[in-house]
Amino acid sequence: MLSNSISRQVEWGDCDPAGIVFNPNFFRWFDHSTSMLYHTAGWSKPIMVKRFDIVGCPLVETSANFISPCRYGDDILIESTIREIGKSSFKINHVLTCNERVCVESIEKRVWSKRNPETGKIKSAPLPQEVVDKFTNA
Amino acid sequence: MLSNSISRQVEWGDCDPAGIVFNPNFFRWFDHSTSMLYHTAGWSKPIMVKRFDIVGCPLVETSANFISPCRYGDDILIESTIREIGKSSFKINHVLTCNERVCVESIEKRVWSKRNPETGKIKSAPLPQEVVDKFTNA
Amino acid sequence: MLSNSISRQVEWGDCDPAGIVFNPNFFRWFDHSTSMLYHTAGWSKPIMVKRFDIVGCPLVETSANFISPCRYGDDILIESTIREIGKSSFKINHVLTCNERVCVESIEKRVWSKRNPETGKIKSAPLPQEVVDKFTNA
Amino acid sequence: MLSNSISRQVEWGDCDPAGIVFNPNFFRWFDHSTSMLYHTAGWSKPIMVKRFDIVGCPLVETSANFISPCRYGDDILIESTIREIGKSSFKINHVLTCNERVCVESIEKRVWSKRNPETGKIKSAPLPQEVVDKFTNA
Repeated sequence: MLSNSISRQVEWGDCDPAGIVFNPNFFRWFDHSTSMLYHTAGWSKPIMVKRFDIVGCPLVETSANFISPCRYGDDILIESTIREIGKSSFKINHVLTCNERVCVESIEKRVWSKRNPETGKIKSAPLPQEVVDKFTNA
Repeated sequence: MLSNSISRQVEWGDCDPAGIVFNPNFFRWFDHSTSMLYHTAGWSKPIMVKRFDIVGCPLVETSANFISPCRYGDDILIESTIREIGKSSFKINHVLTCNERVCVESIEKRVWSKRNPETGKIKSAPLPQEVVDKFTNA
Repeated sequence: MLSNSISRQVEWGDCDPAGIVFNPNFFRWFDHSTSMLYHTAGWSKPIMVKRFDIVGCPLVETSANFISPCRYGDDILIESTIREIGKSSFKINHVLTCNERVCVESIEKRVWSKRNPETGKIKSAPLPQEVVDKFTNA
Repeated sequence: MLSNSISRQVEWGDCDPAGIVFNPNFFRWFDHSTSMLYHTAGWSKPIMVKRFDIVGCPLVETSANFISPCRYGDDILIESTIREIGKSSFKINHVLTCNERVCVESIEKRVWSKRNPETGKIKSAPLPQEVVDKFTNA
């Protein structure tokens, strides 16, 4: 399955008065890591939207386990991997490590979504074979 | 079980280029709603920390379902309810509605945590009966 | 001159490891307070954009003095006042107080901006008299 | 004078519904760039705090000119330079460019601050010669 990793450093403003990363920031980083995964598949987010005439891949479910805290200055690595591919949805697994210690694990479920040109409503749509092939490294 | 609700309005800076709330902000709001739930129980977060000699109640697990998007100017309501109380952990259920439509549901698991004065290590500790009583509205 | 005030409570995630509000959050709150000032003038931001066929009022300059820190749980008040009205720009003064103590003062300069339908370029445009009248409480 | 530069890419969540970077994020990045400037001087922020027994260098004034907007995916560069060194304060100039086009310029004034061990109050203190030497590349 397609995977990608990004590294970043924990900044002062990412941390709360307890001195640890404020948890919503992890979801901010995972969202960016998913964008970078699309990039690795061959399309930046805006290009993917245009190329396949979608509104995007909105997040419909997420879960996370916070195993060990991260602190200011920590060098972290986020490895993101396509996990399951359904008819019109897919899952991404994020593993955030710091010094090879797993700190956070998260799974996102996203839906391939199009706008109905007549009603304006957003609906799920089948994942194109080209996307499935890239996501599975076929 | 103890519950509390907070209301807020979606701000411009909460939204992304798709015009909808950027998902990490929901977790920011749920974190605040949990703090307000402690407040309803009788203690602001700093007072709870001092009163029970804890380091806090770190988040160890969370999950969320994103059912319907929120947009700039939306008036939202977050209802937070204690769900399960274990020996040293508890769960909080957050339901975020907009115009009585459920937009996001989330469950947090948090651990009552103390610092070992000798080793400096942080460990789970049994929830005091006083806290259990407040959380269960006993 | 038109003025408006909003109140809010400092949240845990607004604060940094020094236990004080991380300074970018003040700018987030000032941006929202400006939106609320437009609302008081009679238009929410999306309605103002449509009503006057503008792209918005982008911030071109800002300055701030940080006089006293704010901490978790502080109840703050932001008073925002139109300060100067030019041909196509205007200034807003924000005063943030906590327990009647001034903590932050800031001035924003914003430009009334339209998109040239032919070139697609964004340019300043003269403030409509209706807006000037509202901003000056005329 | 001491200077340093950092690069980063504009992320989806950094941008607002107008598709441009939400202005408070620039201040978040400038704050981080200042921390990296200390690092270049020889001390990470926590080490600087310990080494000189300070509480930090709180921001007391800032100003910014927003010249050109930044968008999702833009590769930006922030060059930060020590500008003026007073008895107990100093200024930092940040220039944010994208494709060699200046987008934002900002000046921060920060104060070298210590806690009075008797009263607990935080007060400005003279900048140590070692710090002045590093900041001036002496």
